Amino acid sequence: MAVYTDISDEELNRFLEQYDLGQLLSFAGIAEGVENSNFLLRTEKNHYILTLYEKRVDQDELPFFIGLMQHLADAGLNCPLPIPTNTGDTLSVCAGRPAAIVSFLNGTSARYPNTQKCHALGVALAQLHQKAKGMTLRRQNSLGPQDWAPLLESIDRDAVDLPQNLREEAAKILPKIVSAWPTDLPSGIIHADLFPNNVLFVGDELTGLIDFYFACSDLLAYDLAICLNSWCFEADGSFNITKSSAMISGYQSVRQLSEAELEALPILSSGAAMRFFLTRFYDWINTPADAFVKPLNPMEYWAKLRFHRNAKSASAYGVGL
Amino acid sequence: MAVYTDISDEELNRFLEQYDLGQLLSFAGIAEGVENSNFLLRTEKNHYILTLYEKRVDQDELPFFIGLMQHLADAGLNCPLPIPTNTGDTLSVCAGRPAAIVSFLNGTSARYPNTQKCHALGVALAQLHQKAKGMTLRRQNSLGPQDWAPLLESIDRDAVDLPQNLREEAAKILPKIVSAWPTDLPSGIIHADLFPNNVLFVGDELTGLIDFYFACSDLLAYDLAICLNSWCFEADGSFNITKSSAMISGYQSVRQLSEAELEALPILSSGAAMRFFLTRFYDWINTPADAFVKPLNPMEYWAKLRFHRNAKSASAYGVGL
Repeated sequence: MAVYTDISDEELNRFLEQYDLGQLLSFAGIAEGVENSNFLLRTEKNHYILTLYEKRVDQDELPFFIGLMQHLADAGLNCPLPIPTNTGDTLSVCAGRPAAIVSFLNGTSARYPNTQKCHALGVALAQLHQKAKGMTLRRQNSLGPQDWAPLLESIDRDAVDLPQNLREEAAKILPKIVSAWPTDLPSGIIHADLFPNNVLFVGDELTGLIDFYFACSDLLAYDLAICLNSWCFEADGSFNITKSSAMISGYQSVRQLSEAELEALPILSSGAAMRFFLTRFYDWINTPADAFVKPLNPMEYWAKLRFHRNAKSASAYGVGL
Repeated sequence: MAVYTDISDEELNRFLEQYDLGQLLSFAGIAEGVENSNFLLRTEKNHYILTLYEKRVDQDELPFFIGLMQHLADAGLNCPLPIPTNTGDTLSVCAGRPAAIVSFLNGTSARYPNTQKCHALGVALAQLHQKAKGMTLRRQNSLGPQDWAPLLESIDRDAVDLPQNLREEAAKILPKIVSAWPTDLPSGIIHADLFPNNVLFVGDELTGLIDFYFACSDLLAYDLAICLNSWCFEADGSFNITKSSAMISGYQSVRQLSEAELEALPILSSGAAMRFFLTRFYDWINTPADAFVKPLNPMEYWAKLRFHRNAKSASAYGVGL
């Protein structure tokens, strides 16, 4: 949660001259997003979000992310719509950083979404998968199964405050997941990071999917597995099968999952747990103690991984309940 | 610039049940204010700011600050209006912190306000002084002339990155300012921190005065002197007499300054420069190197102090231009 780059009023006014948004009414940096700087921008015309892309985002990939949002919003998905400059560019420069203005979406996120919200998420996720079909730009998943072993190897020491055999244990399980990974499932563009904090609701109505900066081409059901991990465990670590059942049936109300996809849910969910375990483990080891953004504890995903390793079939996720 | 306290959606919903604001539409921590945590809150009814008071604010003083905003807003000043709970309280508790919701004001602040804005600030400052007259609560200035010597003495070492004789030089000048300090000028409630970042504009129209957490009883003309310091110097350190003249004439269009007040402008401005020099000097010495909020350089106010020490009369500020 941070604003990394300050924008002076002179810089902002110069920047806004490129757009046809009317008189500026208010402007505030918001404490959302750990990769970029985000600002709430209100003008006579509407509410917007201004994003300044900081160093952790690869600038070459911005046209894909912006293009995807534009494509999905044009197709009617509740997601931010990039606003073009007067010369038609959806990517610009502000305060020396690549910058984009997108439409503002109403809604707030829930830390532990209820069953209705899980159902709505399933619906929206399948809509995203369907509506992304026309996208011509592609982006490879930089955190897919082939990247996990190198990521684990790059973690070259134990953390004093985590179990000491964690790297070894992960090194044992990881090849089992990768070797069992399905290759013949339907693929397409996935969000790849659709955690509850990236989904907005007004009441229980889903009003927005945001933060497309991990989107890539991969197995569609893997995206669902990521959501099963991030939406269906309770604060005490227990798995809520009512929620997962609702999410999957929401998904299937828009896009039917094949038998092979359903059968693959345990392995895909194990992989999703491994992927977030690994990036959190890496950050836990490599984040300086005085950093403003505190790393998330990887053990949460280690416990989730154990759940999925024990799941024998799709019924563990409430399919057919 | 920080959000010190996170609020979960459950906590927020519980908190908002105390208010009659309608359906929650959006909620975001904003990177404004160094003392408190601020959140932009939008509901079906309106836009609001939710403030959580952190440890640096004395809780006993909150009723004064909230009461002052209520009094001034009721009197028609463009300032945040505290919103009462269903039981009529303007101060509540959220996430374990004292909390208040106030109305949201349009506008953005200018780093170097132009002459028109300086005039508008003068008008609004005099309105604040006039409209605050009916306030019955009082708060003593905890950073008044009597507090400067103890503050300087509490700075017990030199800063490696500032001139080495700074404490000695300040100790020489400080008693001269305090002994020449006027005692018989009109007093009342002053804002005491009306820097450009605490004043909002849409175009050149002043739409809001905010951040009343230094407000106190003191000499009215001292409040103007604080604004001369914070509004009328350019980025290169030069004093812009056109701006100060506009500010003072704006002020006088609402409240006429006495001859004694005008004559006192150089000493009051020297005192204001000393006050902000001292708190910045203290923070420069005492802020840990890894703190998220970086301290402001005290030398800016040291240079301003020199300007005011050389000012012989109100004409140095463009009075009668």
